[in-house]
Amino acid sequence: MNRKQEIVDFLERDFPQFGFIVEDVGDGSSVVRHEVGEACLRPGQTVSGPVLFGIADAALYIAVLGEIGIVPHAVTTSMNINFLRKPASDRDIIGKCQLLKLGRRLAVGEVSLYAEGDPEPVSHAVGTYSIPAH
Amino acid sequence: MNRKQEIVDFLERDFPQFGFIVEDVGDGSSVVRHEVGEACLRPGQTVSGPVLFGIADAALYIAVLGEIGIVPHAVTTSMNINFLRKPASDRDIIGKCQLLKLGRRLAVGEVSLYAEGDPEPVSHAVGTYSIPAH
Amino acid sequence: MNRKQEIVDFLERDFPQFGFIVEDVGDGSSVVRHEVGEACLRPGQTVSGPVLFGIADAALYIAVLGEIGIVPHAVTTSMNINFLRKPASDRDIIGKCQLLKLGRRLAVGEVSLYAEGDPEPVSHAVGTYSIPAH
Amino acid sequence: MNRKQEIVDFLERDFPQFGFIVEDVGDGSSVVRHEVGEACLRPGQTVSGPVLFGIADAALYIAVLGEIGIVPHAVTTSMNINFLRKPASDRDIIGKCQLLKLGRRLAVGEVSLYAEGDPEPVSHAVGTYSIPAH
Repeated sequence: MNRKQEIVDFLERDFPQFGFIVEDVGDGSSVVRHEVGEACLRPGQTVSGPVLFGIADAALYIAVLGEIGIVPHAVTTSMNINFLRKPASDRDIIGKCQLLKLGRRLAVGEVSLYAEGDPEPVSHAVGTYSIPAH
Repeated sequence: MNRKQEIVDFLERDFPQFGFIVEDVGDGSSVVRHEVGEACLRPGQTVSGPVLFGIADAALYIAVLGEIGIVPHAVTTSMNINFLRKPASDRDIIGKCQLLKLGRRLAVGEVSLYAEGDPEPVSHAVGTYSIPAH
Repeated sequence: MNRKQEIVDFLERDFPQFGFIVEDVGDGSSVVRHEVGEACLRPGQTVSGPVLFGIADAALYIAVLGEIGIVPHAVTTSMNINFLRKPASDRDIIGKCQLLKLGRRLAVGEVSLYAEGDPEPVSHAVGTYSIPAH
Repeated sequence: MNRKQEIVDFLERDFPQFGFIVEDVGDGSSVVRHEVGEACLRPGQTVSGPVLFGIADAALYIAVLGEIGIVPHAVTTSMNINFLRKPASDRDIIGKCQLLKLGRRLAVGEVSLYAEGDPEPVSHAVGTYSIPAH
């Protein structure tokens, strides 16, 4: 079974509230999709900051799992996010993560978030994952 | 009418999905409360990163509104969050924000998040708000 | 006169302590070089964090000037830097910046730092510049 | 011999280019002082960002050493800094660090920087230290 299917199965079984679609994973990278609905919107019809943060966090999580496999208890230790443009309220948000470092204890990755069909990123994040001893 | 009531009324009217309780606001600071429920939890029974981010973002938003009043379109431009300890899954999370700067264009604030009753912070965030010309 | 020469002349005239070589600028990006000497090193023969920060800050500054021209008083408002690998102590450090956003008031850019000849980045930074009204 | 003297002796012996005065250390906190000279200034007579970053980094380093003792190879892994106000060019800069977490592998601390005599911070930083296995 390939790594992507392994991750999708893990999420369905152990993390049903995950809420994102894993589109791609491998080579230290990932692509996740979030279907934007009314619940994600803020006044002014923009996607809320916490929703965008959640997509960045999920993309980083999937990219890390893609490298180290299904290791329980890998956790985000920090995330820095910049909100760049107001995303359209009727487009899915796509998060593309690229790991910058995969160490023994820490992984660092950057994530660009896009409103589908728009080449300019709506947000950019850099986060750190703590990898448990294994 | 005082500033806190003005903010609470604004949230009820224009931002019903806000989802946090404003406990205090004034002097460049705020306290908000989040009632932790099943939907907030991740595998391992810990409060999810996006939920913690959302509380930090809300506390900063309220502290800014407390200073500048109900100004539409003030938006978070960046947030840096560190996840310090795994919060208990059965305690409310309290976010305490203190503004570090309130400029004409930018406000910067720091937020400490606590699981109620525990003096050690579970997370710490620093964020920037863009204040529209007014 | 082209933009790169205009920036180099400005730096020589008004900012002689700048201390970095502008290798390239344009299209929302820049490349700057820092010649590593003894003064930059920390115990363990690694390039110090503040020196790496300074290169990232300089690369962002040059990328911004490349877009908006010689505008006095553009200032860094925030920077988030991750130290990824220990750079060799005998290689120049190259900073490559790409702007993520150039707004009317704020520019946001990311910078990857490399020890010359090594394809893996030693550091990665994301910073924000405040652009004065002009 | 007390911890502060131990750190000062270590710095003099092994890290003579440190460049900051350790004023206080203990209880997860530190105070360091930087004497501002011409070399630190940027056009507009403001203290440069890299110098402010260096003071924040030093204050975090000293606070960590104050807790774990003289452990070689503890290194900064990330730092997020906000530049809040233009410091006076003729005042020393004081960095005050408070650790937010001291774990087995990671320490996280926040640092406020002040121009001596001014109660408003000129900068605020949050950084992470990686603590080697020992």
